[in-house]
This record gives sequence, structure tokens and C-alpha cells, in this order.
Amino acid sequence: MEYKNLDKALAFQDLTKLTRVSLKNNMSAKRIAKYTATAGGGLTYNYAAMPVNSEIVAKLQELCDEQELVEKYVELLSGEMMNTGEKRLVLHQLTRGNCTGSTVIADDENKDEFYKAQLERIRDFSERVRSGKIKGCTGKKFDTVCQIGIGGSDLGPRALYLALKGWAASEGVKTLRAEFISNVDPDDAAAVLKTIRPETTLFILVSKSGTTLETLTNQMLVTQTLKDIDMSKHLVAVTSKTSPLASSPDVLDAFYIDDYIGGRYSSTSAVGGVVLSTAFGFDTFRELLDGAHEADNNALNGDITKNAAMMDAAIGVYMRNVLGYGQTAILPYSQALSRFPAHLQQLDMESNGKHVNRFGQKIDYKTGPVIFGESGTNGQHSFYQLLHQGTDVIPMQFIGFRNSQSGLDAIVKGSTSQQKLNANLAAQIVAFALGKDDEDPNKQFDGERYSSLLYADRLTPRVLGALLSHFENKVMFQGFLWNLNSFDQEGVQLGKKLATKVLNGCEGDDILKAYADMLM
Amino acid sequence: MEYKNLDKALAFQDLTKLTRVSLKNNMSAKRIAKYTATAGGGLTYNYAAMPVNSEIVAKLQELCDEQELVEKYVELLSGEMMNTGEKRLVLHQLTRGNCTGSTVIADDENKDEFYKAQLERIRDFSERVRSGKIKGCTGKKFDTVCQIGIGGSDLGPRALYLALKGWAASEGVKTLRAEFISNVDPDDAAAVLKTIRPETTLFILVSKSGTTLETLTNQMLVTQTLKDIDMSKHLVAVTSKTSPLASSPDVLDAFYIDDYIGGRYSSTSAVGGVVLSTAFGFDTFRELLDGAHEADNNALNGDITKNAAMMDAAIGVYMRNVLGYGQTAILPYSQALSRFPAHLQQLDMESNGKHVNRFGQKIDYKTGPVIFGESGTNGQHSFYQLLHQGTDVIPMQFIGFRNSQSGLDAIVKGSTSQQKLNANLAAQIVAFALGKDDEDPNKQFDGERYSSLLYADRLTPRVLGALLSHFENKVMFQGFLWNLNSFDQEGVQLGKKLATKVLNGCEGDDILKAYADMLM
Repeated sequence: MEYKNLDKALAFQDLTKLTRVSLKNNMSAKRIAKYTATAGGGLTYNYAAMPVNSEIVAKLQELCDEQELVEKYVELLSGEMMNTGEKRLVLHQLTRGNCTGSTVIADDENKDEFYKAQLERIRDFSERVRSGKIKGCTGKKFDTVCQIGIGGSDLGPRALYLALKGWAASEGVKTLRAEFISNVDPDDAAAVLKTIRPETTLFILVSKSGTTLETLTNQMLVTQTLKDIDMSKHLVAVTSKTSPLASSPDVLDAFYIDDYIGGRYSSTSAVGGVVLSTAFGFDTFRELLDGAHEADNNALNGDITKNAAMMDAAIGVYMRNVLGYGQTAILPYSQALSRFPAHLQQLDMESNGKHVNRFGQKIDYKTGPVIFGESGTNGQHSFYQLLHQGTDVIPMQFIGFRNSQSGLDAIVKGSTSQQKLNANLAAQIVAFALGKDDEDPNKQFDGERYSSLLYADRLTPRVLGALLSHFENKVMFQGFLWNLNSFDQEGVQLGKKLATKVLNGCEGDDILKAYADMLM
Repeated sequence: MEYKNLDKALAFQDLTKLTRVSLKNNMSAKRIAKYTATAGGGLTYNYAAMPVNSEIVAKLQELCDEQELVEKYVELLSGEMMNTGEKRLVLHQLTRGNCTGSTVIADDENKDEFYKAQLERIRDFSERVRSGKIKGCTGKKFDTVCQIGIGGSDLGPRALYLALKGWAASEGVKTLRAEFISNVDPDDAAAVLKTIRPETTLFILVSKSGTTLETLTNQMLVTQTLKDIDMSKHLVAVTSKTSPLASSPDVLDAFYIDDYIGGRYSSTSAVGGVVLSTAFGFDTFRELLDGAHEADNNALNGDITKNAAMMDAAIGVYMRNVLGYGQTAILPYSQALSRFPAHLQQLDMESNGKHVNRFGQKIDYKTGPVIFGESGTNGQHSFYQLLHQGTDVIPMQFIGFRNSQSGLDAIVKGSTSQQKLNANLAAQIVAFALGKDDEDPNKQFDGERYSSLLYADRLTPRVLGALLSHFENKVMFQGFLWNLNSFDQEGVQLGKKLATKVLNGCEGDDILKAYADMLM
């Protein structure tokens, strides 16, 4: 296996020399039918509104071959130490299934069996909570779960919970309400504690190390505030086997993760599993895992035109390193995905917002873009003005579903809400791509504003799992293309150290003290 | 008054020639104390971690003088037709107070009196709802208000409601719960309708024209779903006097706005006034208006070092047009401001994401940046990796408060949560500015990542009003610097037209049809 920087890849050098594609000159119904790739799990990726043609696609295929994307993915799945910075394996895909059949041994245990065993424990525990076999300290059944965690222990599970709430309601799936406390700002915990009944709330404390300052602080804040509750009957931990929490007498139970699941990749481990299984039942979580596993398998396809994650990754690198765009807008036309862009923001920016390659050497090209987004049609009434007529081109990633989750609808002016929603989505793609000439420059739309579309029939647990996996694998493939380690996050350390210094009195650092004095 | 493009301003041409400031070589406690400007309403703007020095500040002052920022602001306040595209006055500041004492007449009425009269009606109505004098169709008191609106009728009011909820709870202010339905996705309405009791819910339909498709569709969806409710006793409208809604027999009451309040600037008009006054009481909304008015007055100061909005605007243009940065991250260290970045995203990107000047001529320089952000410390565990070590510099705007809203807190490891929150904020500013050298490139922090800080004692209604106004006026000043019309949004029209075409069957447009067929 060769790991080389993007700018050393011959296919990349060729790619920079190819003529840019004009959408206005090339867009057609035929093109739309052609430029499509399956993502697995019921999800499809359409890239007709991206500036590519057969020549560019062929060169992207060459680039993926030259950078050995599938081979590296197989290495990762097989338990190679892909997190080079922290010297760790990367095993989040294994939490949903074994794609290669290979046996991964680490920490003296078979990792496939380890994750399966945790999953069985989650199934058992969540069923006992939902059936009322496990009760709170006053003998009442739990009706609420409250996750205490930050970063990957918050954003992914929260986005997935919100994405499934409406689906569960319309399917008649019994649901326990989930709440999340993440921010060390005490107003976050205060707001959540106002909305819950402590007697019937199960808290899930999530910290791999068992030492995350924000999370432990919030746990203490909750415990001190809820003085009448015997927390040992209301608190479970999701943590590593070796953390102090794992054997704490203060928790009802503990579920394990390990060092091979990074926070931002942990939604399909116990980090997302306990809260989602308790909220919606284990079967729902299992369907989500199955969808993710299908997408993981699809990502093994060496043919870029049949591998949505790889195509999405390669086009993204083309946008970033050939065309020079520094941002990607994520635009789900589904209110259920309202917090999915925030999860992808972490997933992508924390993984690939790097300035060194996987060997720790400084690199000379651009890496991960800024990711932002809001659900449509809301965004159309907000920042789309800049996307249409601003002075920078911002590539876009639309997400849409033929059917709503709820099925609730009404015909107004001859169409349903769902039809209006998707009419807007189709219209936006075309408006961005083709623009419209006008004599009045203020009504001129230049077009050539690129977008892709991920779509499925309906946002079910399976499709949601595929969507999650699609982006995880896209980010992984981009890391391979850029020759990065997408699995560490050294950039967060300096702030932590300085914060500790502030809390210890700033010790002669007058700049830090001057800022602290303004604020504290 | 002269309106000229930024690149024609002599001070701008000078500005591009000045030597760039290194924070590492210049940062000191003295600098932090010096580079500060009041924003009014209890809010202060500190720009010590922005790459400026006395020379650059002097040149920014010259630029603001040359582009006649204060004079143009006074013109706007005095009722000049500043929205050149739509040929409208721009009067949102007048909804909170009269800064210049000038009488503005439009539509044959004194606008100051018009807004005051609406405010009195809002006071009266909200008091009658809160006291139970106005009841629902089954004789029950209202305990919930549900705003139906999109874009500016949603983002601003929602962000402000969330920002004040914790404050109101801790102050013992009686609060009616507020919910918001915005997206035409029927799952949005379905989710909200599940959480409310229709009998005790007052709906507020907000559409200036009375014709916003999403909003009318959602109103119909709600009405059709809640068949047992006599909506004429549950629905008020916020609309223009001339809209069909204004005289509809289907509404309990109507509150008026006019063409001189743009959606994204409408939070302090009846658009935010009805929902916030009903939720928190009129006095709370009045305090918010007073804070905004103080900041509006502060923005009249011709001395840039005493005018936070002008300084923020000018530094922003320096970042965008001299240093070339295309993005700004908004990072409030307060969970109460969780949706404030989404509001600012609309405010800024819809106002200044333009490619023509106020005369409708194409311009040759960059305008509004992409705005994104999440609350801290959450963001630290998410996208800050890229902010610290990514290959692009992203300027940042921090927001912080000495005290929490709730007052809830606990000492964990020697400090309170609020202390930890602000220690992190101070630490991040310094970490970004100064970085840290390390032999290991993966642990290298280059620093010179620029940020400013808006701070106050506590997030009260007055401070929140000032914060809102600060950004509105910053955006306005940047529009003057770029010689834009910040008050129209032609860029949203094409998508609307094409969506209508899709709903009408695409009429021979095979590209549109191909996308619609995938989705519908």
C-alpha cells in the first residue's frame, strides 16, 4: 500500500489540466439519468449538477485507483492501524456488521464479538427499560432518557433521534422522549431539567475516557440539583472498559466502547445505541445499523460510478483542489434532518480540517472545507440569496425524500405540502445550475452553481443509517485522497490546556488573564 | 451624499497597502484594554484579537468617513428610499425608537405613530391573552402560542424566544410556551401539532404580503388537521394593512407591518412583537426594544472607536476585501443563543450576498461572507479542529456573558460551570490568536486566527436587543461600504418561479421534469 500526498498523484496532476464543464451547455434529462450512483440502503446519489463529464469521471476513477481508496478501506476494515496519530485501529464500521469477514483482534479480544456482545446487552437493557422491568428509584417506569455527553456523544445521537421521532410517531412505535445535555454552560442543563420529571428519567452519561470535563461537570450538576433522586438507579454509563466510570458503584449499568471508535464516528456504537434503542426500541436501531452496513458494503465497490461515497468524495476533492471552493452547504429538504448538518459539520471538519498528512508532515494543498447548512425550504428564505447571487460559488449537497415521514398533508392550491417541498428542491437544483439571463443585472442569475442530490423514498431507520454511513465513508475516502489521518483531532488540545490554565489563575500569562478578567 | 463602490474609495486603496499586523508580535494586556468599543445596551465589542493597529484603525475611520456611513444611516433613519431595488424606505430601527427626532411620512401616515400604535395594540392584546380575558373556543385560557411563518418571520423571533426562555424562568416571569411552524415539509407541522393542546393554543400567522406559499399552506394544514377548533378564535395575523389577511373574517385580530420592514429586520416589529409579548409579557419585549434603541443610537457615533457596529463592519470588510477571507464563524458561549447564528446567517447572507451595487451595476469585489456557527463549548468538540489547524483562516466572532441566565451552578474540581465556560472562551481567543509552536507538525498551532468578542454582564432582554441591533447595523454599514442595497433579495425569485413551474407540470422543461420525477 502506498500512501502519497494528493499533489504527488499523477491522476490529480492530469485532473487539473482538464477543461472545466459548463452545466448550461451540458445539462439534459439524459445527463440526469446517467450521472447517478447507488449508495446502498435505499439511498441514491445524483451528481448531474456537478461540473463533470465522462473524461473527468474517468480521471476521478484513476485518482481513486492510484490513491488505492478501496484497498485502504479494506485495510481499515481488516484492523490496520489507520489512526496513525493516536496509533489506533478504526473500527466504527464493524459496529454495524462485518464487511470483509476478517477477524480483528485487539486488546486481546475479537472486536466483532465485542461489539456484538455490547449490542446484545443494549438490546436486553433497552427492552427491560421499555417494558418497565427496570424502574426508577420511586418505582415508576421511565418515560424519558437524557443523554449527557458532548461532541460526538451529542451531535450524532441527537441528530438521529430527531430524524426518527416523526417516523416513529407515524409508525406507532412506542417512544420514550430523549433529551440531551451537552454544553458546560449551566443554562443548558437548567433548561433540560425544567422539562423532565426526574423520577421517570433515565440518564445516560457518555464519555469514552470517563474524564471529559464538560460531561462530568454536567453529571455533577444534575446530581446536585436532583437531590431527591437516587442516581444509582437513574444513571447508566457508556464508556471504555478501563475508565473509572466502568466500575463505578454510582451507575446502574455500563456499556462499553473502545479506543477504536472516534467520537464523531460513534453514533452506531453504544454511544448512539443505548439512547436510540431505549427511545425507539432495539429493532429500530438494528434497522439503522443494517442500512449503514449496506452502505458500508456499497463503498467497497471499486467502480466509482457504482460507489456513491467514493464519487462524492472524489468530486468534493475536485471542487476543493481543482476549482478552489472552500465550503459545502448541506441542504436537507426534510425538517426531520434539522440537526443533521450540525453532525456533518463535526464529522467532516474535525476529520479533515488538517494541515499535516498521515505521517505528520505539513502539506501544501487545501484540505477539508467548511460545512454548514439548514433544512429547506427554510434556507430558501434565508441564506440562499448569497448562494444564488453572492460573489463566491458554494457547492451544495441536497438531500430529499419522495414521501414525508408523517403522511400528514393537505392540498392547497392544487398540490400537497410534500409536492411543494420537492417541487422547490427540483427547482433549486435547476435554478442554481442553469441560472437565467436578464437585462437587469440585479435579476441576473449566472448559474454554474454546483450541487448534488442524495435521495430516497422515505426517511426510515434504514435510509438514515445509509445516509450516516455515506457521509462517514465520503469523509474517510477524502482523507485517503488528501493522505490525511481523518481519525485524530490534535487541534482541540491547545484550547483545553489554556482553559485549565485560566481556571488555575492564569499563572503569569497576562494576555489570558486580561481576557479572563473581562469575562469572569 | 455620494454613493460609490468600495474599490473607488481612496481610503480603501490605501488600506490594501498597509502592512499586515501580526497578533503574536503585538498582543498584550494593554492592547486588549485599548481595542474596545461600546455597542450600547450594556454590550461591549473587543477587537484586540483582530489584525489591526492604530494605523489601520485610522484608515478604517477614513474609509467610513469617505463612504459617509453615519450620514447614510441618518438618511435611512430620516426616511430616504434606501431600498433602491424595491423603491422602499427602510424603517426597522423606528420600531424601537426615534433616533433622530425626524418625522417620517409614508403611505400618508406618520410612521413613528404607526409603529407606536401597533405596539400599543400588541401590549393590549398580549395582556388580554395572558390574563385570560381572551380565551380559546372552548373557554380555556391560552398557554401556548404557535407562530406560523418562514424566513424572517421565523428565524429571528425563534432565536429571540429561545434566548429569553431561561432568563424568564429564572426571573419568575410568567411564560406561555412558544412553538414555530415554518417549513413547508408537512413533517414540521406534524411534529409541532403533536406537542400542543389545540384548545389552549393561539396561532400567529405571519406573512407581510399575506401570500407566502409555505405559510398559507401550513395555516391550511393546521386548520384542516384541527377540525374541532374554531380557528377564528385561535388565529391572529401579522401582515400588511393591504393584504387579504388584514380584513379576513377568519382571524381574531390582525397586527400590521408595512413594506419598510424587511423580513430579516422584522424581529422588533409586530412579527416578533406579538409572539414575544404574548410569551413573556409586553414589558420584556419593551426592554428588548429599549436595548436595541440604545444600540441604534450608539451606531450614530462618528468616532469608529466608540461605535462597535461601525468598527465591526469596517474590520469585516478589511477581512473580506483586503485579507480575502470568505467566511465568518459566529460562536456564542451561551446555550440560550443556540439559534442566534441561524438568524445572523439570514440577516447577513441575504442582505449582503449580492453581485450588484445599489444602482444595479455589477461589481468587481467580494461582498458578504458565509456565516455559520454553533454555541460554545459545543463547537470546541466539533468543528474547531478545522478552525485551529485547517488550511483556511476563518475569522470568528465570539459572544460571551459574565453570568449565566439561570444561576444554577455547581462547583466541580474547584470551579463552577459558568467559570469553566468562560475560561474556555478566553482560552480559545488566545489559542487562536497566538497558537503554539511544536516540533511535531501535528501539534503545531500557527495562530494568527482572528476573532472579536462581544460581551455583557448577562443575557437580559436589554442586552439581547442590543445584540440584535448591533448585527443589523453592522450589516447595514457593510452594505454602505460595499455600496450595496442590503434590503432587497432578488436572488430568491428564480427558484420560486421554477417551483411553480414544477407544480404546474414542468411545461416542456425536460431538465426540471427529470429532477421532479426523481423526487415526486
